[in-house]
Amino acid sequence: MTSGPVLVVGTGLIGTSIALALRRTGTRDDIYLADRDPATAIRAAALGAGVAELPAQEPWLVVLAVPPGAVPAALRSLQARYPAAAYTDVSSAQQQPQARARELGCDLRRYVGGHPLAGRERSGPEAARAELFVGRPWVLVPLPETDTDTLERARRLAELCGARPTLRTPQEHDDAVALMSHAPQVVASAVAARLVAGADRDLELAGGGVRDLTRIAASDPALWVDILQANAGPVADVLDAVVADLTRTSAALRQLARCDGSGVAVIAELLHRGNAGRRRLETNG
Amino acid sequence: MTSGPVLVVGTGLIGTSIALALRRTGTRDDIYLADRDPATAIRAAALGAGVAELPAQEPWLVVLAVPPGAVPAALRSLQARYPAAAYTDVSSAQQQPQARARELGCDLRRYVGGHPLAGRERSGPEAARAELFVGRPWVLVPLPETDTDTLERARRLAELCGARPTLRTPQEHDDAVALMSHAPQVVASAVAARLVAGADRDLELAGGGVRDLTRIAASDPALWVDILQANAGPVADVLDAVVADLTRTSAALRQLARCDGSGVAVIAELLHRGNAGRRRLETNG
Repeated sequence: MTSGPVLVVGTGLIGTSIALALRRTGTRDDIYLADRDPATAIRAAALGAGVAELPAQEPWLVVLAVPPGAVPAALRSLQARYPAAAYTDVSSAQQQPQARARELGCDLRRYVGGHPLAGRERSGPEAARAELFVGRPWVLVPLPETDTDTLERARRLAELCGARPTLRTPQEHDDAVALMSHAPQVVASAVAARLVAGADRDLELAGGGVRDLTRIAASDPALWVDILQANAGPVADVLDAVVADLTRTSAALRQLARCDGSGVAVIAELLHRGNAGRRRLETNG
Repeated sequence: MTSGPVLVVGTGLIGTSIALALRRTGTRDDIYLADRDPATAIRAAALGAGVAELPAQEPWLVVLAVPPGAVPAALRSLQARYPAAAYTDVSSAQQQPQARARELGCDLRRYVGGHPLAGRERSGPEAARAELFVGRPWVLVPLPETDTDTLERARRLAELCGARPTLRTPQEHDDAVALMSHAPQVVASAVAARLVAGADRDLELAGGGVRDLTRIAASDPALWVDILQANAGPVADVLDAVVADLTRTSAALRQLARCDGSGVAVIAELLHRGNAGRRRLETNG
Protein backbone atom coordinates (compact mmCIF):
# COMPACT_ATOMS: atom_id res chain seq x y z
CA MET A 1 0.00 0.00 0.00
CA THR A 2 1.15 3.54 -0.69
CA SER A 3 1.05 6.16 2.06
CA GLY A 4 -1.07 8.75 0.34
CA PRO A 5 -2.58 9.70 -2.98
CA VAL A 6 -0.68 9.02 -6.19
CA LEU A 7 -1.02 11.24 -9.25
CA VAL A 8 -0.23 9.61 -12.60
CA VAL A 9 0.41 12.20 -15.30
CA GLY A 10 0.15 10.71 -18.78
CA THR A 11 -2.35 7.89 -19.14
CA GLY A 12 -0.85 5.99 -22.03
CA LEU A 13 0.25 2.38 -21.89
CA ILE A 14 2.76 2.82 -19.06
CA GLY A 15 0.95 5.35 -16.90
CA THR A 16 -2.35 3.48 -17.03
CA SER A 17 -0.59 0.16 -16.35
CA ILE A 18 1.03 1.68 -13.24
CA ALA A 19 -2.32 2.99 -12.03
CA LEU A 20 -3.99 -0.40 -12.62
CA ALA A 21 -1.14 -2.17 -10.82
CA LEU A 22 -1.50 0.13 -7.80
CA ARG A 23 -5.25 -0.42 -7.75
CA ARG A 24 -4.66 -4.15 -7.72
CA THR A 25 -2.52 -3.94 -4.57
CA GLY A 26 -5.74 -3.05 -2.81
CA THR A 27 -4.51 0.41 -1.87
CA ARG A 28 -7.18 2.50 -0.23
CA ASP A 29 -5.35 5.64 -1.26
CA ASP A 30 -6.73 7.46 -4.24
CA ILE A 31 -5.14 7.24 -7.66
CA TYR A 32 -5.52 10.44 -9.66
CA LEU A 33 -5.10 10.55 -13.43
CA ALA A 34 -4.18 13.42 -15.72
CA ASP A 35 -3.26 13.66 -19.38
CA ARG A 36 -2.64 16.57 -21.76
CA ASP A 37 -5.64 15.09 -23.59
CA PRO A 38 -8.39 14.98 -20.90
CA ALA A 39 -10.35 12.43 -22.94
CA THR A 40 -7.47 9.98 -22.61
CA ALA A 41 -7.44 10.36 -18.82
CA ILE A 42 -11.20 9.76 -18.79
CA ARG A 43 -10.74 6.58 -20.86
CA ALA A 44 -8.12 5.37 -18.35
CA ALA A 45 -10.48 6.15 -15.48
CA ALA A 46 -13.23 4.19 -17.21
CA LEU A 47 -10.87 1.20 -17.26
CA GLY A 48 -10.72 1.35 -13.46
CA ALA A 49 -7.33 3.05 -13.22
CA GLY A 50 -8.42 5.90 -10.91
CA VAL A 51 -10.18 9.25 -11.01
CA ALA A 52 -9.53 11.69 -13.84
CA GLU A 53 -8.79 14.78 -11.82
CA LEU A 54 -5.99 16.56 -9.92
CA PRO A 55 -5.92 15.95 -6.17
CA ALA A 56 -6.74 18.83 -3.82
CA GLN A 57 -4.02 17.79 -1.34
CA GLU A 58 -0.31 17.15 -2.01
CA PRO A 59 0.19 13.70 -3.56
CA TRP A 60 2.46 11.19 -1.82
CA LEU A 61 4.00 10.55 -5.25
CA VAL A 62 3.61 12.03 -8.73
CA VAL A 63 4.46 9.66 -11.60
CA LEU A 64 5.36 11.55 -14.77
CA ALA A 65 4.42 8.93 -17.36
CA VAL A 66 5.06 11.26 -20.29
CA PRO A 67 7.69 11.00 -23.06
CA PRO A 68 11.25 11.87 -21.97
CA GLY A 69 11.19 15.25 -23.71
CA ALA A 70 8.05 16.30 -21.81
CA VAL A 71 9.36 15.39 -18.34
CA PRO A 72 11.22 18.63 -17.43
CA ALA A 73 8.34 21.02 -18.17
CA ALA A 74 5.82 18.74 -16.46
CA LEU A 75 8.03 18.48 -13.38
CA ARG A 76 8.45 22.23 -13.22
CA SER A 77 4.77 23.07 -13.54
CA LEU A 78 3.60 20.39 -11.08
CA GLN A 79 6.22 21.33 -8.48
CA ALA A 80 4.70 24.82 -8.51
CA ARG A 81 1.39 23.26 -7.50
CA TYR A 82 2.58 20.42 -5.24
CA PRO A 83 5.97 21.46 -3.84
CA ALA A 84 6.13 18.76 -1.13
CA ALA A 85 5.29 15.75 -3.32
CA ALA A 86 7.90 13.22 -4.46
CA TYR A 87 8.30 12.89 -8.21
CA THR A 88 9.47 10.14 -10.51
CA ASP A 89 9.17 9.43 -14.21
CA VAL A 90 9.15 6.44 -16.55
CA SER A 91 11.66 7.90 -18.93
CA SER A 92 13.59 5.74 -21.39
CA ALA A 93 16.41 8.30 -21.38
CA GLN A 94 17.65 10.07 -18.28
CA GLN A 95 20.67 12.35 -18.81
CA GLN A 96 19.08 14.85 -21.15
CA PRO A 97 15.75 15.31 -19.31
CA GLN A 98 17.62 15.59 -16.00
CA ALA A 99 19.95 18.26 -17.40
CA ARG A 100 16.96 20.18 -18.71
CA ALA A 101 15.11 19.88 -15.38
CA ARG A 102 18.16 21.35 -13.67
CA GLU A 103 18.22 24.22 -16.19
CA LEU A 104 14.55 24.90 -15.47
CA GLY A 105 15.28 25.22 -11.77
CA CYS A 106 13.21 22.22 -10.66
CA ASP A 107 13.61 21.02 -7.07
CA LEU A 108 15.75 17.96 -7.73
CA ARG A 109 15.71 16.84 -4.09
CA ARG A 110 12.15 15.63 -4.60
CA TYR A 111 12.77 13.98 -7.99
CA VAL A 112 14.24 10.63 -8.96
CA GLY A 113 14.41 9.29 -12.50
CA GLY A 114 12.73 5.96 -13.09
CA HIS A 115 12.46 3.54 -15.98
CA PRO A 116 10.36 0.38 -15.86
CA LEU A 117 11.77 -1.95 -18.51
CA ALA A 118 8.43 -3.08 -19.84
CA GLY A 119 6.33 -2.17 -22.78
CA ARG A 120 4.29 -3.39 -25.65
CA GLU A 121 4.31 -2.42 -29.29
CA ARG A 122 0.73 -1.19 -28.73
CA SER A 123 0.04 2.11 -27.02
CA GLY A 124 -2.78 3.97 -25.27
CA PRO A 125 -4.71 3.24 -22.07
CA GLU A 126 -6.60 0.33 -23.65
CA ALA A 127 -3.29 -1.54 -24.11
CA ALA A 128 -2.49 -1.18 -20.39
CA ARG A 129 -2.09 -4.23 -18.13
CA ALA A 130 -1.84 -4.29 -14.35
CA GLU A 131 0.72 -7.11 -14.61
CA LEU A 132 2.92 -5.35 -17.20
CA PHE A 133 5.80 -4.83 -14.76
CA VAL A 134 5.74 -8.13 -12.87
CA GLY A 135 9.25 -9.57 -12.63
CA ARG A 136 10.70 -6.84 -14.87
CA PRO A 137 13.61 -4.57 -13.94
CA TRP A 138 12.64 -1.03 -12.89
CA VAL A 139 15.69 1.22 -13.02
CA LEU A 140 15.89 4.04 -10.46
CA VAL A 141 18.25 6.84 -11.41
CA PRO A 142 18.81 9.21 -8.48
CA LEU A 143 20.56 12.53 -8.98
CA PRO A 144 23.12 13.74 -6.44
CA GLU A 145 20.38 16.01 -5.10
CA THR A 146 17.69 13.33 -4.70
CA ASP A 147 16.69 12.86 -1.06
CA THR A 148 16.31 9.39 0.43
CA ASP A 149 12.57 9.77 1.07
CA THR A 150 11.96 10.43 -2.64
CA LEU A 151 14.10 7.46 -3.68
CA GLU A 152 12.27 5.29 -1.15
CA ARG A 153 8.84 6.27 -2.50
CA ALA A 154 9.89 5.48 -6.07
CA ARG A 155 11.31 2.14 -4.96
CA ARG A 156 8.01 1.42 -3.20
CA LEU A 157 6.14 2.20 -6.42
CA ALA A 158 8.30 -0.26 -8.39
CA GLU A 159 7.77 -2.98 -5.79
CA LEU A 160 4.01 -2.39 -5.62
CA CYS A 161 3.95 -2.89 -9.40
CA GLY A 162 5.71 -6.25 -8.96
CA ALA A 163 8.94 -5.04 -10.59
CA ARG A 164 12.56 -5.50 -9.46
CA PRO A 165 14.01 -2.05 -8.59
CA THR A 166 17.67 -1.59 -9.51
CA LEU A 167 19.91 1.49 -9.23
CA ARG A 168 21.99 3.03 -12.03
CA THR A 169 23.77 6.29 -12.67
CA PRO A 170 22.23 8.36 -15.47
CA GLN A 171 25.05 7.48 -17.88
CA GLU A 172 25.01 3.78 -17.00
CA HIS A 173 21.27 3.77 -17.63
CA ASP A 174 21.41 5.58 -20.95
CA ASP A 175 24.30 3.53 -22.35
CA ALA A 176 22.60 0.29 -21.30
CA VAL A 177 19.22 1.08 -22.87
CA ALA A 178 20.89 2.39 -26.05
CA LEU A 179 22.44 -1.07 -26.38
CA MET A 180 19.52 -3.19 -25.18
CA SER A 181 16.52 -1.27 -26.49
CA HIS A 182 16.99 1.95 -28.48
CA ALA A 183 19.48 0.82 -31.12
CA PRO A 184 17.57 -2.49 -31.61
CA GLN A 185 14.44 -0.41 -32.24
CA VAL A 186 16.17 1.51 -35.05
CA VAL A 187 17.60 -1.68 -36.54
CA ALA A 188 14.20 -3.41 -36.48
CA SER A 189 12.71 -0.40 -38.27
CA ALA A 190 15.48 -0.43 -40.89
CA VAL A 191 14.94 -4.13 -41.67
CA ALA A 192 11.16 -3.69 -41.75
CA ALA A 193 11.60 -0.65 -44.02
CA ARG A 194 13.19 -2.98 -46.62
CA LEU A 195 9.92 -4.91 -46.81
CA VAL A 196 8.10 -1.90 -48.23
CA ALA A 197 9.82 -2.52 -51.57
CA GLY A 198 9.33 -6.31 -51.60
CA ALA A 199 6.80 -7.96 -53.92
CA ASP A 200 3.74 -9.61 -52.36
CA ARG A 201 5.24 -12.90 -53.56
CA ASP A 202 8.36 -12.14 -51.52
CA LEU A 203 6.35 -11.34 -48.41
CA GLU A 204 4.64 -14.75 -48.67
CA LEU A 205 7.99 -16.35 -47.87
CA ALA A 206 8.34 -14.66 -44.48
CA GLY A 207 9.39 -17.00 -41.70
CA GLY A 208 9.59 -16.68 -37.94
CA GLY A 209 13.01 -15.02 -38.03
CA VAL A 210 12.03 -11.86 -39.88
CA ARG A 211 8.71 -11.73 -38.04
CA ASP A 212 10.39 -11.79 -34.64
CA LEU A 213 13.14 -9.42 -35.74
CA THR A 214 10.70 -6.74 -36.94
CA ARG A 215 8.03 -7.11 -34.25
CA ILE A 216 8.99 -3.86 -32.51
CA ALA A 217 9.01 -2.01 -35.86
CA ALA A 218 5.26 -1.65 -35.23
CA SER A 219 6.00 0.77 -32.38
CA ASP A 220 4.65 4.34 -32.23
CA PRO A 221 6.93 6.64 -34.29
CA ALA A 222 6.05 9.80 -32.34
CA LEU A 223 7.00 8.23 -29.01
CA TRP A 224 10.19 6.77 -30.46
CA VAL A 225 11.33 10.01 -32.06
CA ASP A 226 11.11 11.50 -28.59
CA ILE A 227 13.00 8.61 -26.95
CA LEU A 228 15.75 8.53 -29.59
CA GLN A 229 16.13 12.29 -29.48
CA ALA A 230 16.57 12.15 -25.70
CA ASN A 231 19.28 9.45 -25.95
CA ALA A 232 20.75 10.42 -29.31
CA GLY A 233 24.49 10.16 -28.65
CA PRO A 234 24.58 6.71 -27.00
CA VAL A 235 22.21 5.28 -29.66
CA ALA A 236 24.36 6.67 -32.49
CA ASP A 237 27.42 5.01 -30.92
CA VAL A 238 25.75 1.58 -30.95
CA LEU A 239 24.37 2.06 -34.47
CA ASP A 240 27.81 3.02 -35.79
CA ALA A 241 29.26 -0.20 -34.40
CA VAL A 242 26.45 -2.24 -35.98
CA VAL A 243 26.99 -0.41 -39.29
CA ALA A 244 30.72 -1.20 -39.15
CA ASP A 245 29.99 -4.93 -38.77
CA LEU A 246 27.36 -4.93 -41.52
CA THR A 247 29.59 -2.96 -43.89
CA ARG A 248 32.47 -5.37 -43.35
CA THR A 249 30.13 -8.32 -43.88
CA SER A 250 28.69 -6.86 -47.07
CA ALA A 251 32.19 -6.31 -48.47
CA ALA A 252 33.07 -9.90 -47.60
CA LEU A 253 29.93 -11.13 -49.40
CA ARG A 254 30.91 -9.12 -52.50
CA GLN A 255 34.28 -10.90 -52.41
CA LEU A 256 32.52 -14.26 -52.25
CA ALA A 257 30.24 -13.28 -55.13
CA ARG A 258 33.44 -12.73 -57.15
CA CYS A 259 34.60 -16.23 -56.10
CA ASP A 260 37.21 -14.73 -53.76
CA GLY A 261 36.93 -17.00 -50.72
CA SER A 262 38.77 -14.65 -48.38
CA GLY A 263 35.44 -13.24 -47.18
CA VAL A 264 34.45 -16.46 -45.42
CA ALA A 265 36.45 -15.75 -42.26
CA VAL A 266 34.84 -12.31 -41.83
CA ILE A 267 31.33 -13.74 -42.12
CA ALA A 268 32.06 -16.69 -39.83
CA GLU A 269 33.53 -14.36 -37.21
CA LEU A 270 30.38 -12.22 -37.12
CA LEU A 271 28.10 -15.27 -36.87
CA HIS A 272 30.19 -16.70 -34.01
CA ARG A 273 30.20 -13.34 -32.23
CA GLY A 274 26.41 -13.24 -32.67
CA ASN A 275 26.19 -16.69 -31.07
CA ALA A 276 28.25 -15.44 -28.12
CA GLY A 277 26.12 -12.33 -27.64
CA ARG A 278 22.91 -14.32 -27.85
CA ARG A 279 24.22 -16.80 -25.26
CA ARG A 280 24.84 -13.91 -22.87
CA LEU A 281 21.23 -12.85 -23.31
CA GLU A 282 20.04 -16.38 -22.60
CA THR A 283 22.14 -16.71 -19.45
CA ASN A 284 21.38 -13.23 -18.02
CA GLY A 285 18.00 -12.32 -16.65
CA MET B 1 1.75 -41.81 -50.29
CA THR B 2 4.84 -41.71 -52.46
CA SER B 3 5.21 -44.12 -55.38
CA GLY B 4 8.46 -45.76 -54.42
CA PRO B 5 11.38 -45.47 -52.06
CA VAL B 6 12.68 -42.05 -50.99
CA LEU B 7 16.33 -41.45 -50.19
CA VAL B 8 17.06 -38.53 -47.87
CA VAL B 9 20.71 -37.47 -48.07
CA GLY B 10 21.72 -35.34 -45.10
CA THR B 11 19.94 -36.17 -41.85
CA GLY B 12 20.14 -32.84 -40.08
CA LEU B 13 17.13 -30.83 -38.94
CA ILE B 14 15.50 -30.51 -42.37
CA GLY B 15 16.30 -33.93 -43.86
CA THR B 16 15.20 -35.80 -40.75
CA SER B 17 12.04 -33.68 -40.47
CA ILE B 18 11.15 -34.56 -44.09
CA ALA B 19 11.72 -38.24 -43.41
CA LEU B 20 9.59 -38.11 -40.25
CA ALA B 21 6.84 -36.25 -42.12
CA LEU B 22 6.79 -38.89 -44.87
CA ARG B 23 6.66 -41.67 -42.30
CA ARG B 24 3.68 -39.99 -40.68
CA THR B 25 1.71 -40.04 -43.93
CA GLY B 26 1.62 -43.79 -43.45
CA THR B 27 3.62 -44.47 -46.60
CA ARG B 28 4.48 -48.11 -46.97
CA ASP B 29 7.39 -47.18 -49.18
CA ASP B 30 10.77 -47.29 -47.56
CA ILE B 31 12.58 -44.17 -46.45
CA TYR B 32 16.35 -44.48 -46.74
CA LEU B 33 18.72 -42.20 -44.87
CA ALA B 34 22.31 -41.23 -45.62
CA ASP B 35 24.69 -38.67 -44.20
CA ARG B 36 28.36 -37.90 -44.73
CA ASP B 37 28.60 -38.80 -41.03
CA PRO B 38 27.09 -42.33 -40.84
CA ALA B 39 26.52 -41.94 -37.08
CA THR B 40 24.16 -39.04 -37.77
CA ALA B 41 22.10 -41.14 -40.19
CA ILE B 42 21.93 -43.90 -37.56
CA ARG B 43 20.68 -41.37 -34.98
CA ALA B 44 17.97 -40.25 -37.41
CA ALA B 45 17.00 -43.88 -38.03
CA ALA B 46 16.77 -44.47 -34.28
CA LEU B 47 14.27 -41.60 -34.15
CA GLY B 48 12.03 -43.53 -36.52
CA ALA B 49 12.92 -41.57 -39.66
CA GLY B 50 13.80 -44.59 -41.84
CA VAL B 51 16.64 -47.02 -42.44
CA ALA B 52 20.24 -45.82 -42.48
CA GLU B 53 21.33 -47.34 -45.76
CA LEU B 54 21.32 -46.75 -49.50
CA PRO B 55 18.52 -48.49 -51.42
CA ALA B 56 19.38 -51.34 -53.79
CA GLN B 57 16.82 -50.16 -56.37
CA GLU B 58 16.42 -46.71 -57.94
CA PRO B 59 14.63 -44.34 -55.54
CA TRP B 60 11.41 -42.66 -56.64
CA LEU B 61 12.88 -39.43 -55.26
CA VAL B 62 16.23 -38.40 -53.79
CA VAL B 63 16.09 -35.41 -51.38
CA LEU B 64 19.45 -33.67 -51.11
CA ALA B 65 19.08 -32.16 -47.62
CA VAL B 66 22.66 -30.88 -47.55
CA PRO B 67 23.94 -27.28 -47.42
CA PRO B 68 23.66 -25.35 -50.71
CA GLY B 69 27.38 -25.61 -51.45
CA ALA B 70 27.28 -29.41 -51.17
CA VAL B 71 24.31 -29.94 -53.53
CA PRO B 72 26.13 -30.03 -56.90
CA ALA B 73 28.70 -32.68 -55.96
CA ALA B 74 26.07 -34.81 -54.18
CA LEU B 75 23.79 -34.61 -57.23
CA ARG B 76 26.58 -35.64 -59.56
CA SER B 77 27.74 -38.60 -57.52
CA LEU B 78 24.23 -39.93 -56.81
CA GLN B 79 23.14 -39.58 -60.44
CA ALA B 80 26.01 -41.90 -61.35
CA ARG B 81 24.44 -44.53 -59.06
CA TYR B 82 20.71 -43.82 -59.59
CA PRO B 83 20.38 -42.26 -63.07
CA ALA B 84 16.59 -42.66 -63.31
CA ALA B 85 15.65 -41.15 -59.93
CA ALA B 86 14.17 -37.69 -59.56
CA TYR B 87 16.20 -35.26 -57.44
CA THR B 88 15.36 -32.24 -55.39
CA ASP B 89 17.12 -30.28 -52.67
CA VAL B 90 16.23 -28.06 -49.71
CA SER B 91 18.63 -25.32 -50.64
CA SER B 92 18.28 -21.79 -49.25
CA ALA B 93 20.04 -20.44 -52.36
CA GLN B 94 19.41 -21.68 -55.86
CA GLN B 95 21.26 -19.83 -58.62
CA GLN B 96 24.81 -20.65 -57.60
CA PRO B 97 24.31 -24.38 -56.85
CA GLN B 98 22.33 -24.76 -60.09
CA ALA B 99 25.08 -23.10 -62.13
CA ARG B 100 27.65 -25.39 -60.52
CA ALA B 101 25.52 -28.50 -61.16
CA ARG B 102 25.35 -27.51 -64.84
CA GLU B 103 29.15 -27.09 -64.92
CA LEU B 104 29.55 -30.56 -63.41
CA GLY B 105 27.45 -32.07 -66.22
CA CYS B 106 24.57 -33.25 -63.97
CA ASP B 107 21.39 -34.45 -65.70
CA LEU B 108 19.22 -31.39 -65.02
CA ARG B 109 16.08 -32.98 -66.52
CA ARG B 110 15.76 -35.09 -63.37
CA TYR B 111 16.52 -32.26 -60.92
CA VAL B 112 14.38 -29.47 -59.49
CA GLY B 113 15.51 -27.03 -56.82
CA GLY B 114 13.40 -26.92 -53.68
CA HIS B 115 13.32 -24.81 -50.54
CA PRO B 116 10.96 -25.45 -47.65
CA LEU B 117 10.66 -22.17 -45.73
CA ALA B 118 10.89 -23.70 -42.30
CA GLY B 119 13.59 -24.10 -39.76
CA ARG B 120 14.59 -23.76 -36.18
CA GLU B 121 17.61 -22.18 -34.58
CA ARG B 122 18.54 -25.67 -33.36
CA SER B 123 20.11 -28.21 -35.67
CA GLY B 124 20.73 -31.96 -35.93
CA PRO B 125 18.31 -34.90 -36.22
CA GLU B 126 17.19 -34.59 -32.59
CA ALA B 127 15.74 -31.13 -33.39
CA ALA B 128 13.63 -32.59 -36.24
CA ARG B 129 9.82 -32.44 -36.16
CA ALA B 130 7.41 -34.22 -38.51
CA GLU B 131 5.18 -31.13 -38.44
CA LEU B 132 7.96 -28.65 -39.23
CA PHE B 133 6.60 -27.87 -42.71
CA VAL B 134 2.87 -27.80 -42.02
CA GLY B 135 1.30 -24.72 -43.58
CA ARG B 136 4.69 -23.31 -44.60
CA PRO B 137 5.64 -22.27 -48.16
CA TRP B 138 7.84 -24.74 -50.05
CA VAL B 139 9.41 -23.05 -53.03
CA LEU B 140 10.01 -25.18 -56.13
CA VAL B 141 12.60 -23.78 -58.52
CA PRO B 142 12.60 -25.68 -61.82
CA LEU B 143 15.35 -25.16 -64.37
CA PRO B 144 14.51 -24.91 -68.08
CA GLU B 145 15.68 -28.53 -68.39
CA THR B 146 13.57 -29.94 -65.50
CA ASP B 147 11.03 -32.50 -66.78
CA THR B 148 7.43 -32.42 -65.57
CA ASP B 149 7.66 -35.81 -63.84
CA THR B 150 10.50 -34.55 -61.64
CA LEU B 151 8.66 -31.33 -60.79
CA GLU B 152 5.55 -33.37 -59.99
CA ARG B 153 7.43 -35.66 -57.59
CA ALA B 154 8.94 -32.69 -55.74
CA ARG B 155 5.52 -31.05 -55.52
CA ARG B 156 4.15 -34.32 -54.10
CA LEU B 157 6.91 -34.34 -51.48
CA ALA B 158 6.03 -30.80 -50.38
CA GLU B 159 2.34 -31.69 -50.12
CA LEU B 160 3.02 -34.89 -48.20
CA CYS B 161 4.98 -32.78 -45.71
CA GLY B 162 1.92 -30.53 -45.28
CA ALA B 163 3.59 -27.53 -46.96
CA ARG B 164 2.23 -25.15 -49.62
CA PRO B 165 4.25 -25.62 -52.84
CA THR B 166 4.87 -22.42 -54.81
CA LEU B 167 6.92 -21.85 -57.99
CA ARG B 168 9.68 -19.26 -58.45
CA THR B 169 12.48 -18.63 -60.92
CA PRO B 170 15.96 -19.04 -59.41
CA GLN B 171 16.53 -15.27 -59.32
CA GLU B 172 13.09 -14.54 -57.84
CA HIS B 173 13.78 -17.11 -55.15
CA ASP B 174 17.23 -15.86 -54.25
CA ASP B 175 16.25 -12.18 -54.15
CA ALA B 176 13.22 -12.98 -52.00
CA VAL B 177 15.10 -15.05 -49.42
CA ALA B 178 17.93 -12.51 -49.28
CA LEU B 179 15.30 -9.96 -48.22
CA MET B 180 13.15 -12.17 -46.01
CA SER B 181 15.69 -14.47 -44.38
CA HIS B 182 19.40 -14.13 -45.20
CA ALA B 183 19.95 -10.40 -44.61
CA PRO B 184 17.83 -10.52 -41.42
CA GLN B 185 20.10 -13.34 -40.18
CA VAL B 186 23.19 -11.15 -40.64
CA VAL B 187 21.50 -8.17 -38.97
CA ALA B 188 20.40 -10.29 -36.00
CA SER B 189 23.99 -11.52 -35.62
CA ALA B 190 25.34 -7.95 -35.80
CA VAL B 191 22.99 -6.74 -33.06
CA ALA B 192 23.70 -9.80 -30.90
CA ALA B 193 27.44 -9.27 -31.45
CA ARG B 194 27.11 -5.88 -29.69
CA LEU B 195 25.98 -7.69 -26.55
CA VAL B 196 29.37 -9.37 -26.16
CA ALA B 197 30.82 -6.08 -24.95
CA GLY B 198 27.91 -5.17 -22.63
CA ALA B 199 28.26 -5.39 -18.87
CA ASP B 200 26.27 -8.06 -17.00
CA ARG B 201 24.31 -5.15 -15.50
CA ASP B 202 23.38 -4.03 -19.01
CA LEU B 203 22.24 -7.51 -20.00
CA GLU B 204 19.87 -7.58 -17.00
CA LEU B 205 17.86 -4.84 -18.69
CA ALA B 206 17.05 -6.93 -21.77
CA GLY B 207 13.41 -6.80 -22.82
CA GLY B 208 11.33 -8.72 -25.30
CA GLY B 209 12.40 -6.55 -28.24
CA VAL B 210 16.09 -7.39 -28.22
CA ARG B 211 15.34 -10.99 -27.31
CA ASP B 212 13.05 -11.45 -30.30
CA LEU B 213 15.34 -9.51 -32.60
CA THR B 214 18.37 -11.67 -31.81
CA ARG B 215 16.66 -15.07 -31.52
CA ILE B 216 18.05 -16.31 -34.87
CA ALA B 217 21.56 -15.14 -33.89
CA ALA B 218 21.76 -18.53 -32.12
CA SER B 219 21.81 -20.27 -35.52
CA ASP B 220 24.62 -22.59 -36.64
CA PRO B 221 27.49 -20.48 -38.08
CA ALA B 222 28.84 -23.26 -40.34
CA LEU B 223 25.48 -23.73 -42.05
CA TRP B 224 24.95 -19.99 -42.40
CA VAL B 225 28.39 -19.33 -43.87
CA ASP B 226 27.43 -21.85 -46.55
CA ILE B 227 24.00 -20.26 -47.15
CA LEU B 228 25.34 -16.70 -47.26
CA GLN B 229 28.18 -17.72 -49.56
CA ALA B 230 25.70 -19.32 -51.96
CA ASN B 231 23.52 -16.16 -52.06
CA ALA B 232 26.23 -13.56 -51.51
CA GLY B 233 25.30 -10.91 -54.09
CA PRO B 234 21.58 -10.56 -53.27
CA VAL B 235 22.30 -10.53 -49.52
CA ALA B 236 24.96 -7.83 -49.92
CA ASP B 237 22.43 -5.71 -51.86
CA VAL B 238 19.91 -5.84 -48.99
CA LEU B 239 22.58 -5.22 -46.34
CA ASP B 240 23.85 -2.17 -48.21
CA ALA B 241 20.35 -0.69 -48.23
CA VAL B 242 19.97 -1.37 -44.48
CA VAL B 243 23.40 0.18 -43.85
CA ALA B 244 22.39 3.30 -45.81
CA ASP B 245 19.30 3.76 -43.62
CA LEU B 246 21.22 3.15 -40.39
CA THR B 247 24.04 5.49 -41.43
CA ARG B 248 21.58 8.27 -42.26
CA THR B 249 19.79 7.68 -38.94
CA SER B 250 23.04 7.75 -36.96
CA ALA B 251 24.03 11.05 -38.60
CA ALA B 252 20.61 12.49 -37.77
CA LEU B 253 21.03 11.39 -34.13
CA ARG B 254 24.43 13.11 -33.99
CA GLN B 255 22.71 16.30 -35.19
CA LEU B 256 20.13 15.95 -32.41
CA ALA B 257 22.88 15.37 -29.84
CA ARG B 258 24.29 18.75 -30.95
CA CYS B 259 20.81 20.25 -30.41
CA ASP B 260 20.34 20.58 -34.20
CA GLY B 261 16.70 19.51 -34.60
CA SER B 262 16.93 18.92 -38.35
CA GLY B 263 17.56 15.22 -37.72
CA VAL B 264 14.04 14.59 -36.42
CA ALA B 265 12.49 14.25 -39.88
CA VAL B 266 15.03 11.62 -40.95
CA ILE B 267 14.38 9.52 -37.87
CA ALA B 268 10.60 9.86 -38.09
CA GLU B 269 10.68 8.85 -41.76
CA LEU B 270 12.55 5.62 -40.99
CA LEU B 271 10.21 4.74 -38.12
CA HIS B 272 7.16 5.32 -40.32
CA ARG B 273 8.68 3.27 -43.13
CA GLY B 274 9.35 0.51 -40.59
CA ASN B 275 5.68 0.66 -39.56
CA ALA B 276 4.66 0.28 -43.20
CA GLY B 277 6.97 -2.68 -43.81
CA ARG B 278 5.81 -4.40 -40.66
CA ARG B 279 2.16 -3.92 -41.66
CA ARG B 280 2.88 -5.68 -44.98
CA LEU B 281 4.30 -8.61 -43.04
CA GLU B 282 1.20 -8.75 -40.85
CA THR B 283 -1.19 -8.68 -43.80
CA ASN B 284 0.74 -11.17 -45.99
CA GLY B 285 0.88 -14.86 -45.18
